[in-house]
Amino acid sequence: MTSQAGTAKAWGGRFTEAPDRRLEAFNASVAFDVRMIREDIRGSIAHARMLGQQGIISPDEARQLEAGLWQVLAEADAGDFALTIADEDVHTGVERRLREIVGGVAGKLHTARSRNDQAGTDLRLWTKGALVALMQGVLDLADALAEVAAANAELVMPGYTHLQRAQPVLLAHHLLAYVEMLSRDFDRLRDAYRRTDVMPLGAGALAGVTYPIDREMTRADLGFDRVSANSLDAVSDRDYVLDTLYACAVIAMHCSRLAEEVILWSSAEFRFLELADAFTTGSSIMPQKKNADIAELARGKTGRVYGNLVAMLTTAKGLPLSYNKDLQEDKEPLFDSVDTILATLGVLPPMMRTARWRGDRMAEAAIADFSLATDAADLLARNGVPFREAHEITGRLVRDCIAQGKTFADLTVEEWAAIHPVFARERPALTAIESLRARDVPGGTAPNRVAEQLVAARERLAGARAEAAALDEARSAVMRAVPQQS
Amino acid sequence: MTSQAGTAKAWGGRFTEAPDRRLEAFNASVAFDVRMIREDIRGSIAHARMLGQQGIISPDEARQLEAGLWQVLAEADAGDFALTIADEDVHTGVERRLREIVGGVAGKLHTARSRNDQAGTDLRLWTKGALVALMQGVLDLADALAEVAAANAELVMPGYTHLQRAQPVLLAHHLLAYVEMLSRDFDRLRDAYRRTDVMPLGAGALAGVTYPIDREMTRADLGFDRVSANSLDAVSDRDYVLDTLYACAVIAMHCSRLAEEVILWSSAEFRFLELADAFTTGSSIMPQKKNADIAELARGKTGRVYGNLVAMLTTAKGLPLSYNKDLQEDKEPLFDSVDTILATLGVLPPMMRTARWRGDRMAEAAIADFSLATDAADLLARNGVPFREAHEITGRLVRDCIAQGKTFADLTVEEWAAIHPVFARERPALTAIESLRARDVPGGTAPNRVAEQLVAARERLAGARAEAAALDEARSAVMRAVPQQS
Amino acid sequence: MTSQAGTAKAWGGRFTEAPDRRLEAFNASVAFDVRMIREDIRGSIAHARMLGQQGIISPDEARQLEAGLWQVLAEADAGDFALTIADEDVHTGVERRLREIVGGVAGKLHTARSRNDQAGTDLRLWTKGALVALMQGVLDLADALAEVAAANAELVMPGYTHLQRAQPVLLAHHLLAYVEMLSRDFDRLRDAYRRTDVMPLGAGALAGVTYPIDREMTRADLGFDRVSANSLDAVSDRDYVLDTLYACAVIAMHCSRLAEEVILWSSAEFRFLELADAFTTGSSIMPQKKNADIAELARGKTGRVYGNLVAMLTTAKGLPLSYNKDLQEDKEPLFDSVDTILATLGVLPPMMRTARWRGDRMAEAAIADFSLATDAADLLARNGVPFREAHEITGRLVRDCIAQGKTFADLTVEEWAAIHPVFARERPALTAIESLRARDVPGGTAPNRVAEQLVAARERLAGARAEAAALDEARSAVMRAVPQQS
Amino acid sequence: MTSQAGTAKAWGGRFTEAPDRRLEAFNASVAFDVRMIREDIRGSIAHARMLGQQGIISPDEARQLEAGLWQVLAEADAGDFALTIADEDVHTGVERRLREIVGGVAGKLHTARSRNDQAGTDLRLWTKGALVALMQGVLDLADALAEVAAANAELVMPGYTHLQRAQPVLLAHHLLAYVEMLSRDFDRLRDAYRRTDVMPLGAGALAGVTYPIDREMTRADLGFDRVSANSLDAVSDRDYVLDTLYACAVIAMHCSRLAEEVILWSSAEFRFLELADAFTTGSSIMPQKKNADIAELARGKTGRVYGNLVAMLTTAKGLPLSYNKDLQEDKEPLFDSVDTILATLGVLPPMMRTARWRGDRMAEAAIADFSLATDAADLLARNGVPFREAHEITGRLVRDCIAQGKTFADLTVEEWAAIHPVFARERPALTAIESLRARDVPGGTAPNRVAEQLVAARERLAGARAEAAALDEARSAVMRAVPQQS
Repeated sequence: MTSQAGTAKAWGGRFTEAPDRRLEAFNASVAFDVRMIREDIRGSIAHARMLGQQGIISPDEARQLEAGLWQVLAEADAGDFALTIADEDVHTGVERRLREIVGGVAGKLHTARSRNDQAGTDLRLWTKGALVALMQGVLDLADALAEVAAANAELVMPGYTHLQRAQPVLLAHHLLAYVEMLSRDFDRLRDAYRRTDVMPLGAGALAGVTYPIDREMTRADLGFDRVSANSLDAVSDRDYVLDTLYACAVIAMHCSRLAEEVILWSSAEFRFLELADAFTTGSSIMPQKKNADIAELARGKTGRVYGNLVAMLTTAKGLPLSYNKDLQEDKEPLFDSVDTILATLGVLPPMMRTARWRGDRMAEAAIADFSLATDAADLLARNGVPFREAHEITGRLVRDCIAQGKTFADLTVEEWAAIHPVFARERPALTAIESLRARDVPGGTAPNRVAEQLVAARERLAGARAEAAALDEARSAVMRAVPQQS
Repeated sequence: MTSQAGTAKAWGGRFTEAPDRRLEAFNASVAFDVRMIREDIRGSIAHARMLGQQGIISPDEARQLEAGLWQVLAEADAGDFALTIADEDVHTGVERRLREIVGGVAGKLHTARSRNDQAGTDLRLWTKGALVALMQGVLDLADALAEVAAANAELVMPGYTHLQRAQPVLLAHHLLAYVEMLSRDFDRLRDAYRRTDVMPLGAGALAGVTYPIDREMTRADLGFDRVSANSLDAVSDRDYVLDTLYACAVIAMHCSRLAEEVILWSSAEFRFLELADAFTTGSSIMPQKKNADIAELARGKTGRVYGNLVAMLTTAKGLPLSYNKDLQEDKEPLFDSVDTILATLGVLPPMMRTARWRGDRMAEAAIADFSLATDAADLLARNGVPFREAHEITGRLVRDCIAQGKTFADLTVEEWAAIHPVFARERPALTAIESLRARDVPGGTAPNRVAEQLVAARERLAGARAEAAALDEARSAVMRAVPQQS
Repeated sequence: MTSQAGTAKAWGGRFTEAPDRRLEAFNASVAFDVRMIREDIRGSIAHARMLGQQGIISPDEARQLEAGLWQVLAEADAGDFALTIADEDVHTGVERRLREIVGGVAGKLHTARSRNDQAGTDLRLWTKGALVALMQGVLDLADALAEVAAANAELVMPGYTHLQRAQPVLLAHHLLAYVEMLSRDFDRLRDAYRRTDVMPLGAGALAGVTYPIDREMTRADLGFDRVSANSLDAVSDRDYVLDTLYACAVIAMHCSRLAEEVILWSSAEFRFLELADAFTTGSSIMPQKKNADIAELARGKTGRVYGNLVAMLTTAKGLPLSYNKDLQEDKEPLFDSVDTILATLGVLPPMMRTARWRGDRMAEAAIADFSLATDAADLLARNGVPFREAHEITGRLVRDCIAQGKTFADLTVEEWAAIHPVFARERPALTAIESLRARDVPGGTAPNRVAEQLVAARERLAGARAEAAALDEARSAVMRAVPQQS
Repeated sequence: MTSQAGTAKAWGGRFTEAPDRRLEAFNASVAFDVRMIREDIRGSIAHARMLGQQGIISPDEARQLEAGLWQVLAEADAGDFALTIADEDVHTGVERRLREIVGGVAGKLHTARSRNDQAGTDLRLWTKGALVALMQGVLDLADALAEVAAANAELVMPGYTHLQRAQPVLLAHHLLAYVEMLSRDFDRLRDAYRRTDVMPLGAGALAGVTYPIDREMTRADLGFDRVSANSLDAVSDRDYVLDTLYACAVIAMHCSRLAEEVILWSSAEFRFLELADAFTTGSSIMPQKKNADIAELARGKTGRVYGNLVAMLTTAKGLPLSYNKDLQEDKEPLFDSVDTILATLGVLPPMMRTARWRGDRMAEAAIADFSLATDAADLLARNGVPFREAHEITGRLVRDCIAQGKTFADLTVEEWAAIHPVFARERPALTAIESLRARDVPGGTAPNRVAEQLVAARERLAGARAEAAALDEARSAVMRAVPQQS
């Protein structure tokens, strides 16, 4: 029984031919799973500690493994340790380097675990970190919008439906709508975090392991909330990747809506907003151009974030239990969506904070085009005219004004009275502020209601911030856990 | 100022031409939003009650409206009331019929609301009901699988990775992996429910309304958890539709995995499972065929459920605030995904319950093909051989056995001893049950661990069932709320 | 050997239990495949004729079958023939009705074919018809845009990049960009048609049939271009469905871009376009609103058309050969995308034709905001200044003008001369028409170039129209093929 | 008018602030568009030649630019020239390096073009090359499958529908079904190529340019088929990217089907196929495992290829004309899909070529499970029994055989006769070869028909190969075009 020549693969024994170079290149994940190297090493440290504690390996072997692993981590942090395609994946690469450092005892590290439960543990640790970063990113944008809202509390703008001017609203009210969206995003990320916070280590390849391991010990060491309940599920579940990709997709969608508005508002036609030079770009040929590239990219990148979700859903479709190699395709879409959303959430806040609002343009537009017609209809309805009839009367009034080139403000008292007897006694709101104040209901755009909203939103954001910070601190504590005393 | 001829649209006053027939057909949503007619009427009843209570209309007007609305509902339930394309949408259709019943006072119903907040309220009410039905459907399948697991507690089968036989597992363990998936699905539906349980009524068209409405009263009457905090967000948010579509997509993915396995297990090659005749179909040309059509459709329908999620994500991308007509495209994908998943969750449980397991075939396959090789390597490792070396030794053993056409059971004591000194003292597990018992870790496939798992799963399912039932009962109570006493 | 009671299924013999009601409902396709009833009957007529011709059945039997099938078709056309869920699918339903008409000889129709090749033949016939209709729809919109371009040949508007005014263009030039897109759509539909135009009949269930059929005869009778080359591929290929769904997706994308522009142009901020009342809608609450609902729906429906493509791609992923029931999921997305695109292409042309252009607003916007700055830089470059330097000089000029609140037109001859010596001799274009005329290159916006483009586009559209008409006529001839003489 | 400090951006003049570092990082495309550097330089060479020819710059300036550009190309090929994030994109980076080499005249290169038409030209050149590579990859796999079919012409296997054994087929027939799919893929790539083969250069930023350029000269120099007809369309069209992504998606789907079959066939349950060790991998924990990782990855990667199509469709949705920065998101999904498909098409052919077929297992399975029942029914039908009745009779026969544990081969002459009088005279096929031979129709699995198919397929593939080679050669000639003589 001669050993197979020339392979350091984790699985060589049964094979008579060395792997084809094309297979190696197609198969290797090391180019991307290297991003989990810190999680991989930290997971191995917890595993080694537990093996020693349980007597599966000797305490001294455990100490050697742990010391070696910290060294690999230090080398990786220092950029001194490179993985190659021959390492196949990050797990094999780390073990290879460990063997170079501590020698044959390295071969004991993989006792009582498989790459299947190991890879799942690594990716869940990584994802937990990513979700906390996403929570903080979402709060950064929400805080920026709340700040802009607070700093521009008096600005009035047209509220739109169908991109037609509908009724005046406060800019702050408009911006706080995005804070609501981002709050739901935070909620969604928290749900994803809860479902991610499960440790698969101990599931082995698929069926559990034959050693007296202490899963509770590794769980506590790695800061997971609970251990997986079923080993087959543990090695084939990627729901947490999907939950993260989905949460990113909805964030991207929300950002695409804000981005669309920034693009519209920056156009010559709207001109509600002037972005700072530092957050715009020019044209290689048209000297006058100043483009809202960031907003366009934030909108355009929605495509890749949606695509990543579709990718993982497609890959997971129809896979029999338990682990299949298809699942190696989980990482690249996840990394890309997380990177894309973090970058977007990093650049939108300063862009919004440094932009200049054109309050004059907004105020003028807010009451143009009969945006106060609803107020006129409401006045009739409050005086007993059925709303449907009031709407009809006001609709005809608008039509006639357009035909005659008039606005409501141009109408004389007599003309108002001729439209309906109610208007003989009372005229509808003719200024934006009157109109705004009338919408004095919870969630409405009346200035006092918006002020309340802002206070409530900021309290909510502060609570969320504290929650994210606690998760972040817990994670840092796990990752920097000092070597145990012998 | 003459009225526009020939239109009963909700918005005619301002227009000088009647709508083109092509626009009407393209624009009408009545063909599908009629599914929300009960929710629409119930929402209007709550609105009318509140208008009366607040003195926005007279108590008597409120009573007339409510009585008329209950009559419309009774007609709809009896199939006596049909909507037409000229009704444009369900909201207009109901109001049209209400006017036929109660006369001009019907024109007061739309006071202090818009179709924008009304449609959102209807769809959220409908979605809450759908989510409860989905929760129950998920539990139906989980219960069926737990029941099959319990009834076949001794059956052993091959556990697979890469669709290669890997290690023996209990069938019950395999089925409980799906119970884990479905438990996460339940969790996801509950999260979606929580985010859906917000009442937009009172947001008006986009900015709130100018009447002294009592949102808390309508909220309580309709059984919502809370009211929307921002009116612009309230009329343009469809996150709850996305959350539901996403939860359906993951359920579909899980079902597609189970379906794939049922198809494999029903094949002549596996023959682990025989589906009941009543849940299979035949061929129009090949008399011997017996096809697992249900499983194939459950797998194939994953496509439409994914597609519906993509549809709504695409539609929402880049929309400026607040309401845009694009959002009318929210309902058909939602209805289709809910219908598809409910049908799938309705037909899989009886299919699984009535299937017959071929325990002999499964047991034979469970230990064929060196599925116990890990146990051999583990035995070496437990005796101090580094696992990497143990793996290599056992891998070569497998290779040599294959070359010589032998199984582990064929090896003599001397042959075992020749492989490694440890094997001179002790031979590895050579039966499935020994192998299973050795995996005695939390989440492992050892019979005692699987029995614990089953108990825990059933407790969890019972708790979830009670939760879903409570939500269902609360919803029913709202929907059948008897007319108020005058 | 007693027959199975109570089922008229095409495949009962082997089964001992009747199908469960839930299976029947889940499994039945009759609710949607009834749309192919004409194609199904026509295919059966061709099959019966061929069976008779080849002596597989007697000439008299063939005549009876054909006569009966024409009667079923007449009943279907008259609405006298209804399919029920017990019919399972349209194929079984038609044969059931045929048996009621012609008796036991109906049992001979299914000789030498299977539902697998029959269903493929039906769907390809249907798809060919749909593709021709789509071609015509695409041409309808292209013709409408070309017509609007021709009718407004002098109108100037701002050309945009990044939604910032960039350089003046002719409206006709802008509209002809969409004609280019639609020409590519036509091309894509033609490619899809070519790949659809293959007859699977004769592939049997999967392996061919054991009778001396004449596939060439049925091919010619049904108007297919060629017969399938491989029976396994024939029954499992749905590429033509994907090609059609993809072509629809790109059309939807193009329409979404046009729709976005119509929405922008109809806004108060742009006001370049006023849609006819007959092609807009109003608000239930805001009397002044006039919304571009058609354009919003055309944009929003992009979601479902994308979703349908994703659905079919997902369903087809990973299916082993040959036919699997999953493929029954091919029809609903196909029908929905075809219906959606045909409706969109039906309503956009009259909307565009009846819209009123606000040439004054467009012309004013065309030269505002330094849209002629490129012309200034080009003037410098034509006089030997390296373009990069010319761009820099002009960029600073724009910046300074903005700072001083000036436009180019406000600058004196001296001020021009101070900027660069070239400007002392010659000033850049200061009107839109000068700027347009200067872009006198193939594909450019100079009026003479646009006029050429329009002529070329119309010739191309006329050729395409003739091609679509020929395909349409060929199809009609097949579908109405009179009964053969006996 | 002082120049802006510290930026080498192509568009600095108008700006008063330097770009924010976060904007730069978010905005830069250089990390990925560097892949088009050869195309970018080659396009610039053609542009410089034309500018010189037309007298827009002097012949000497043109020669300096061309010489400098060849040098940049040589440096890039040698790995001596690195782009940085400060270069923003490949276009700016190349021009920056050119300026370092040739000095100020570099500033004249960008005369009469914009990055918009330049980037489109680059990407179309790149895509044309990618499409030719994809064509060749598709042919590589088709050739390999045809070769395996030819080398195993006698092997019989079960044909499947619904993954149930249906009728025997030749392995060659099965493999040729994939050759049909790949032929359609080739066709689709050719269509994509035709629509890609259009030169946008000359469209300028959006409206054409103001110089007397000769687009025909650059077109011929760069080997494009034709020039774009409309400048607005030219800078905003990404249909060719979509066409390529879509063609890749269908290839991925086809490969996923083949991969699924390889996985099934390699399982212990099927065991039709043994992959070579060099194209499989093992397990880190289970020494006996031999996994079809390549096939699993080929199947799993379908996800990312679908996702990339969705990404670009999403990005393009609803964009107004003309160029928007969103379109910068075109390249990464395109590169990823092309890379993924080329890698897959590179590794599948050797995997298929080196696999070993288990003809014994396949032959045995081919006639097991009553796969010849259709032949029995056909025999009755050929003797005048209506097929529906023949199907029923044979179905009952199968049912009774199963109940009695018999196969057709076990039945005595008397038992056959008792079933139906026809069987007293003649028994149906009881061997696979008889059954195969009977399917002697075009496209059927009879050995003579499959042999014809193979010949025809190989002729078709050879023609396609020649076509791809011609395109490849034409492209190479363009890319290596030697510097013009001065």
